[in-house]
Amino acid sequence: MTDRYENIVIEGVSPELDCGRYPVKREIGDRLEVWADIFKDGHDVIAAVVKHRRKGGPEWSESPMELRNPGLDLWTGSFDLPRNARFEYTIEAWTDHFETWRREVRAKVEAGQRVELELLEGRELVEDAARRSGEKRLEAALKELDVANYDEALALLLSEPLKELMDCHPDRSASTVYKTLEVVVDRVAARYGAWYEIFPRSQGTAPGRGATFREAEARLPEIAEMGFDVLYMTPIHPIGTAHRKGRNNVLVAAPDDPGSPYAIGSEEGGHKAVHPELGTLEDFRHFVGACREHGMEVALDFAIQCSPDHPLIEEHPEWFRFRPDGTIKYAENPPKKYQDIVNVDWHTEDWKALWQEWLDVVLFWVEQGVKAFRVDNPHTKPLPFWEWLIREVQEEHPEVIFLSEAFTRPRRLEGLAKLGFTQSYTYFTWRNTKWELTEYLTELTRGGPQEYLRPNFFANTHDILPHILQFGGRPAFQMRLVLAATLSPAYGIYNGFELCENTPRGEPGTTVYYQDSEVYEYKVWDWDRPGNIKDYVRRINGIRRQNPALQELTNLTFHHADNVNVLFYSKTSGENTVLVAVNLNPFETHAAHLDLPLDALGIGEDEEYVVEELFSGRVLPGRRGRSFWVRLTPQENVAEIFHVRKAGA
Amino acid sequence: MTDRYENIVIEGVSPELDCGRYPVKREIGDRLEVWADIFKDGHDVIAAVVKHRRKGGPEWSESPMELRNPGLDLWTGSFDLPRNARFEYTIEAWTDHFETWRREVRAKVEAGQRVELELLEGRELVEDAARRSGEKRLEAALKELDVANYDEALALLLSEPLKELMDCHPDRSASTVYKTLEVVVDRVAARYGAWYEIFPRSQGTAPGRGATFREAEARLPEIAEMGFDVLYMTPIHPIGTAHRKGRNNVLVAAPDDPGSPYAIGSEEGGHKAVHPELGTLEDFRHFVGACREHGMEVALDFAIQCSPDHPLIEEHPEWFRFRPDGTIKYAENPPKKYQDIVNVDWHTEDWKALWQEWLDVVLFWVEQGVKAFRVDNPHTKPLPFWEWLIREVQEEHPEVIFLSEAFTRPRRLEGLAKLGFTQSYTYFTWRNTKWELTEYLTELTRGGPQEYLRPNFFANTHDILPHILQFGGRPAFQMRLVLAATLSPAYGIYNGFELCENTPRGEPGTTVYYQDSEVYEYKVWDWDRPGNIKDYVRRINGIRRQNPALQELTNLTFHHADNVNVLFYSKTSGENTVLVAVNLNPFETHAAHLDLPLDALGIGEDEEYVVEELFSGRVLPGRRGRSFWVRLTPQENVAEIFHVRKAGA
Repeated sequence: MTDRYENIVIEGVSPELDCGRYPVKREIGDRLEVWADIFKDGHDVIAAVVKHRRKGGPEWSESPMELRNPGLDLWTGSFDLPRNARFEYTIEAWTDHFETWRREVRAKVEAGQRVELELLEGRELVEDAARRSGEKRLEAALKELDVANYDEALALLLSEPLKELMDCHPDRSASTVYKTLEVVVDRVAARYGAWYEIFPRSQGTAPGRGATFREAEARLPEIAEMGFDVLYMTPIHPIGTAHRKGRNNVLVAAPDDPGSPYAIGSEEGGHKAVHPELGTLEDFRHFVGACREHGMEVALDFAIQCSPDHPLIEEHPEWFRFRPDGTIKYAENPPKKYQDIVNVDWHTEDWKALWQEWLDVVLFWVEQGVKAFRVDNPHTKPLPFWEWLIREVQEEHPEVIFLSEAFTRPRRLEGLAKLGFTQSYTYFTWRNTKWELTEYLTELTRGGPQEYLRPNFFANTHDILPHILQFGGRPAFQMRLVLAATLSPAYGIYNGFELCENTPRGEPGTTVYYQDSEVYEYKVWDWDRPGNIKDYVRRINGIRRQNPALQELTNLTFHHADNVNVLFYSKTSGENTVLVAVNLNPFETHAAHLDLPLDALGIGEDEEYVVEELFSGRVLPGRRGRSFWVRLTPQENVAEIFHVRKAGA
Repeated sequence: MTDRYENIVIEGVSPELDCGRYPVKREIGDRLEVWADIFKDGHDVIAAVVKHRRKGGPEWSESPMELRNPGLDLWTGSFDLPRNARFEYTIEAWTDHFETWRREVRAKVEAGQRVELELLEGRELVEDAARRSGEKRLEAALKELDVANYDEALALLLSEPLKELMDCHPDRSASTVYKTLEVVVDRVAARYGAWYEIFPRSQGTAPGRGATFREAEARLPEIAEMGFDVLYMTPIHPIGTAHRKGRNNVLVAAPDDPGSPYAIGSEEGGHKAVHPELGTLEDFRHFVGACREHGMEVALDFAIQCSPDHPLIEEHPEWFRFRPDGTIKYAENPPKKYQDIVNVDWHTEDWKALWQEWLDVVLFWVEQGVKAFRVDNPHTKPLPFWEWLIREVQEEHPEVIFLSEAFTRPRRLEGLAKLGFTQSYTYFTWRNTKWELTEYLTELTRGGPQEYLRPNFFANTHDILPHILQFGGRPAFQMRLVLAATLSPAYGIYNGFELCENTPRGEPGTTVYYQDSEVYEYKVWDWDRPGNIKDYVRRINGIRRQNPALQELTNLTFHHADNVNVLFYSKTSGENTVLVAVNLNPFETHAAHLDLPLDALGIGEDEEYVVEELFSGRVLPGRRGRSFWVRLTPQENVAEIFHVRKAGA
C-alpha cells in the first residue's frame, strides 16, 4: 500500500507518441489541443488543467480543460505555441470539492429541501481554502457568513464571485499528474515550402566544366520567379578521384569526368570544404545571401560517406574498418560493390568522437547560414545517432530543418520521423492511382503519422524519374506537380522537371534513372526549351502562397468524383477553402461529376453559388446543388483548382 | 551522450495495455502471441526473443521470435501460459552478426566472387563467440579452420551445425530490451461459464419466511440440471432494520418485511456474518460443498455499504462521515436520499485500515470456499482501492474471480476491467438491434477491450428487466438467452428468467424493475410454471459445453443475412465451428438468406456439404453454395444453431 493514492484516472491522452518516448511536432503559431479521458469513482466534480512550459523551464503555465463529452469522460484543453522551441506539457486533475458541494446543494434547494447542515459543510470548505491560501477575500467571506442568516449564507456560498475565488485555491493535494510529454515547435517552413533541387555545377552556360557559385547566382531570379522557397543543392564538397564513376554510372571515369558529388572528399578537403571548382567558402556564403535576397533559403545535402580520398581516413583511421589484409572496407550490398565509397565504422570504439565529428560538420554549415539539410540515406546510419545529432543541433539552433531521404520500409521511414527528422521524403513518388493516393494521404493525414511525420512530396529527384513521367510526358508532369503541390504543404521538384525532362537510362519503364544524369557529368541545361511548364509551376506556387489552406497538411478531405481517373479533394483553413480536381490519366480526357462539400462551404442545397477556377480565372455564377461537372483534358487542363463562394458573398 | 546506445528499435508491441500500466488477461492453457515492430539501420540481420517468467521469478525463459512480415518489420513469438498466475514478458533483440556475415558471403559466392578475406572475417566472429562462451565445440571448429583449405573453410563456416552453435552464443552486449509487461493468467472460468443468480432466501417452499441454506440446497439439482456453472447469490449477511425498505421499495417496511439484502449489517453482524435466517456459517459452507457436488461454484455478492445498524459504525466511527450536527452521513444522490444505506468515508485519514478491513472480508469468504465475487457498484468506490484489493487477494489466491457490476460510462466500465476485475457486466442488456449488437460485439472482440475486459452477458438481473423482455414475452426470453449464451462465453440469468417472469413495476416500458421484486420481500417461486423455458436453457447450456467454439470470445465473426431482423454469426475453435442465426424480432417470423462462410469451413463453392441444426437435430444433406435459407418463427424457432460439414467428412 502506498502512502498516497491518486483517485483520478487520466488516460487516452493525445497527442502522445509511443507512450511519450518521442515528441510530437507542431509549428510556430499553432495551438496544441490536448485531449484525455479523465474520470474517477462516484459523482464528484473533476477539475483539470493542461500544464505547459518551455522544455526545462522553471514554471508551468496552466490552461483549463473542459469536459467536452461527459458520456465519454472526454476532456480537452489547449495552449499556444508561440516560439521555435521544445515545449513540455502534461495534465493535472483533481476533485473539485467545492463545485461538487455546490451542485449537490443546488439540486437539494431546487427540490425544496432545507440545507442547514450543508451550509455548515460548505463553510468548512471555504475555511479549508482560506487556511491553505491565506486569501484575505476568503477570510472576509467567512466573516460575512458569521453574521448571515440562512438565505444570505446560501446566496453567498452559491455566489459566482465566491466560486471564482474558490477555483483559484483548490485542494490539489490528492491530484493526479500525468507523465510529461514533449512537443517540438518548428518554424513554419518545416511544414510549408516549395523545394527546388539543383546540382550547382550544372547551373552555368559553359560546356565542359562546372559552373561556379557566382555563375549559378544568375539562375536565382528565374528559380525565385517560379515561386520556390527552398533551393536544395546536392553535395558541394571536393570529389574523390579514386574509383571515380564515369558518365551514366560506368565503372571507369574518363579523365575529364567530374565524378559524383556523393563521393565526398579529396585532398582538397572533406565535408567542411567547398569544391574548388564551385568557388570558395566566401563564394558559398555569398550564394546563400543571394538566395536570401530572392526570398529563398539554401538546403544542403548531408551525406555521411567518404570517397577513399577523404582526409578523414588518414586523420582518423580508427573511424574506418580495415580488412584482415589491411585494405579499407568499401561499401557493399553483396554481391554489389561500391569501391568509390567508404562508410564510416559506426561500431568503432571511438564512436563518441565520430558522432561529434558529424555534429561539427552540421554546425559548421549552420554557421555559414544553412538552416536546412537534406539528409542522404539516414536509414543506413544508426538511428540513435540521428536522434542525438538533431537534438544537439536544435538545442542551439531550433530553426534548423532536417529532411530525411529514407526511401525504405514504412516502420523505418516513420521511425526516423519519430526520432526527430523535421520532414520526410515519402512514397508519394510511387503512388499514382486514385485508390493509392486516397489510401496513402488518408494514412499520412489521419492515420497517426500526422503527429510526427511531415511529408515533403518530391515529384522527382535526381535518382528517381518515375515511370508515369517517362510515359505520360507533359500532362503527367503537370498532373504530378498539382498533386504534390496541393496534397502536401511541402513539396519539391528536381530541376529539369519544369522542362519535362523524361529520358530514362535504358528502355522506358525499366529503370527510374535519368539518361546522362548530371550526377556523373557536367551539364548545361536549356532552361527555356520548348514544351516547358515553367509558367504552370509559377502559377501553382502562386496559388499555394495565396491560399493558406494549401499551406497545411491535415486539413485534407477527399470527396466523391464519379470517375476512377479523377481525384477530387479540398482543403480548408479558416475562411479559405480550395477544391482540387485532377485527371490522373495523362493519356485521356476524363470528365466527372464532383460531389461538392456544400455543408463545409456553408452553402445550402438550394442556395446559389459561384465557382471560380484559379488557373483560368473562369467564373461560373448561378450554380446550385452538390453536383459539379468537370472535363479534364491532357492538353488543356489536367487539373482544376476552385474557389466556391455563396452568391453575393 | 550516453555510454551505450541501443541500435535496435522495438515498438508497436502487442499485447500492451496503456503503455504497460495495466496487465492484459489470458486463461490457463492459452499461448500468448507477442507482436512487435523491430528494426534498425542498414542491412544487418536481427535476432529477437520473447522473454517470459512468472512474475518476480528469478530467471527469464526465452522463445524465439520470427520475422513474420519483412516489409513491415513485423515480428512475432509466443509462449505457453500453463498456470493460474501472473507472468511477465518482454522482448530482447540484437544484431545477428554471424548470420549477417553468412548472408553476405552466400550472395558473393553465388555471384562467383572469391571470399578469402570474408573467411578470415568469419573466423574472427567464431573466435569472438568462442571467447565469450568458452564453448569447446567452437574451439574445435577454429582448430579445424586452421588446417582447412579454401573450400573446406567456406563449407565449415557456412555449415548448419556451426550456425546452430553460433546461435547459442550471440553477442548481446548491444541488445535492446523492451520494457517489462504483465499478463494475468486466470482459470478458464474467468472466461467461460453460465451464471445463475438467486436470492437464497427465495429458494424455499414455505411462504412468509425466508428459506434456509439447507432448504435452498434442494434447488441445486434442478439448477445444475439446467447446465449452470456458477451460482451467484445476492448478499447473505444480516440485514439492518433502521429505515428498512418495504415491498416494492416503499420507504416504510411492514413489520414482517425482510428488507433488502443490500442493507448490510445489524446487531447480528456485518460483512463477515451470515443472516441467521439463512443459517450458520457452517450451513453456508455445507451449501458451498453441495454446489461443488453438483458441479457448480458459488459467487458471493460483495457490496461495500452498510445499514445504519452495521457493527462497523460503532467499532470504527472514524471510517464514516458525520455531519456538523453529529449525525452520520447517509447515501445520497441529491436530491434523492437513501437513509437505509451508509457509505464508508473513503477520505478517512485511517484509509489504510479501512482498505485492509475490506480485504479481510474478501479473504474471510475465500477461506469459506468462495472463489468468485460479484462486486456491487465498484465504480462508486476508489478505483485504486480495487486495483490494490484484487492484487492482494490474487497474490495468495490467483483463482479468485471478481465480476464488476459497473453499469456506468464506458471509460469507467473499461477502467475497472483494466485495473483488475476478472469479468464485467456490459451494455449487452440494452443492445437489441442488429446494428447495435454487431457494433458492440465488434468493439468487445476486436476493438481493444478483448485484451482486458471479459464480458459476462447477463440477460436480466434482479434490478434489470429489459423492455424487450417486458414486451416480447417467451420468444424474447429465448432470443436473448441464445444471444447471451452464444455471443459471450460467460453469460448469466437471474432466476425467473427461465420462467419468463416479466411483470415490471409500473406500466411496461416505463421502468426496468420487477413488480414484487424479491429484493424487498420473501418469495416462493413456482419453478415449473407453465410456459417456462427450462428445457431450452438446458439445451443451450449443453450446446455450449459440447462446442469449444462457444467457450471463447474473440473467435466471433458476423456474416451477412439479408434481413435486418436476422443476426447471423459464427465461432470457430480448432475443428469446431458453430453458426448461429437469431431472429431479433420476437413478434414476427423472419426469413433470411445466410451467407455461409464456406472458405472458413474449408468447403469449396461447388462442394457438397451437410447442415445439422443442433436444437432440432435436423440434418440437411446435399447442400451446395454460399446461400442458406432460414425461417425463424417466434413460436417454433427464434434461433437456429448449426454445424456445417463437408459431405462425407
